[in-house]
Amino acid sequence: MSIKKSLILVVNDDGITAPGIIALIAVAKEFGDVVVVAPNKPQSGMGHAITMDSTLHVTKMDINGTVAYSCSGTPVDCVKIAVNKLLPHKPNLIVSGINHGSNSSINVIYSGTMSAAVEGSLEKIPSIGFSLLNHSIDADFTAAQKYVRQIIKQVLTNKFISNICLNVNIPNLKEELIAGIKVCRQAKGNWQEEYDERKDPMGRTYYWLTGQFVSEDNGNDTDEWALANNYVSVVPVQSDITNYKILNDIKMMENA
Amino acid sequence: MSIKKSLILVVNDDGITAPGIIALIAVAKEFGDVVVVAPNKPQSGMGHAITMDSTLHVTKMDINGTVAYSCSGTPVDCVKIAVNKLLPHKPNLIVSGINHGSNSSINVIYSGTMSAAVEGSLEKIPSIGFSLLNHSIDADFTAAQKYVRQIIKQVLTNKFISNICLNVNIPNLKEELIAGIKVCRQAKGNWQEEYDERKDPMGRTYYWLTGQFVSEDNGNDTDEWALANNYVSVVPVQSDITNYKILNDIKMMENA
Repeated sequence: MSIKKSLILVVNDDGITAPGIIALIAVAKEFGDVVVVAPNKPQSGMGHAITMDSTLHVTKMDINGTVAYSCSGTPVDCVKIAVNKLLPHKPNLIVSGINHGSNSSINVIYSGTMSAAVEGSLEKIPSIGFSLLNHSIDADFTAAQKYVRQIIKQVLTNKFISNICLNVNIPNLKEELIAGIKVCRQAKGNWQEEYDERKDPMGRTYYWLTGQFVSEDNGNDTDEWALANNYVSVVPVQSDITNYKILNDIKMMENA
Repeated sequence: MSIKKSLILVVNDDGITAPGIIALIAVAKEFGDVVVVAPNKPQSGMGHAITMDSTLHVTKMDINGTVAYSCSGTPVDCVKIAVNKLLPHKPNLIVSGINHGSNSSINVIYSGTMSAAVEGSLEKIPSIGFSLLNHSIDADFTAAQKYVRQIIKQVLTNKFISNICLNVNIPNLKEELIAGIKVCRQAKGNWQEEYDERKDPMGRTYYWLTGQFVSEDNGNDTDEWALANNYVSVVPVQSDITNYKILNDIKMMENA
């Protein structure tokens, strides 16, 4: 199998000790040489943050025989320093995750897991973010691993665009209950925040962010639809956020 | 002028003491009541990061007679807590900046300034991020303020879509040298990173992120083109990052 010689970078946002990354490393090793570069602490919700105003620190380690680097930065920092400093050459593939929790719909823009994958695609490296719809530390990644394997194989063997980037979300179901894969678009949706207001022991107010996801999309071609119908959702993503639909409508701003 | 009664939220990513936010507050006050909610420290490059794993702290203060809140979180946190907790009602407009430095091309996805604006548009509030192409603490915002005024007026008076979000970049030129406004798309481009490797006093290696922006776009309809030709660039942005161009090409992944 010619793809056996691939160099694969594994990253995540839950931190280098998360069970999800261990499950991802195990599958990635079936396809080639694996190097892990992951945050030294949980970095969920870090979006596309990078470390500009402080230093980055990297510690070499070993995860079940795999070369790994624990990094003080964000998931995007991990990709940048891996590709530009730590790896022996440009990797054939970047896989991020397996995230503990969903990155469907609007979650994609808050997600460190997916921002790491988008950063990989900016480096013209095929990149995939994987997420399982289970936040628990005890989540069972067995069924997820089957789809991780299938999707990695497809990306390594098919002639997709060189900077392909996929947002893969996997329902929290046993393998036999998963209906298959749906390629779909990002569902419209948003978070309805509520701030939990508390007092510290000194009497000062502080807040915890809480909230609920609110779907704003009834389409049957979305990631939310796919997941609600027991499919693995695969959304191709990219980094151009221009709103082309209104570009012409606002041209009149030039004539103020 | 009916727009005089507007409630305007001012945010930024350079922190509540940055000269750029003072320049933005001054213009925003011409259009209505202003409330400032901004980070208590520089948050450049924070992208769409949110504070999930720790607490948020907010301190009320006054900036030249304007109600302001200094927030321990990211630019996106500032928008969320302003809209959901601190403001008396939903604002008519969110303005972010004026950023010290460019947020054109791919910088938009790393930018806390622009992520705050995108977050505003997710709340269905018209939102504008302003950036001046000058990183200096001593930057002269006079010419920028003219365009900030003009663009705020246009957004408040025109019937644009309710969740309009604009990425406005302003050349670092005297007013008479600015050629006007160009509505354009996000240029393709990327950063070529180089990590500056150093040793700390204990002999341990650490890194500073450095790099150069590399344009990958020759179009004359982009923000990079506009800025290089002395125009203020206005790019409408949105939060759906689905790559619709390849959606059909990868449908075959469903049949593995």
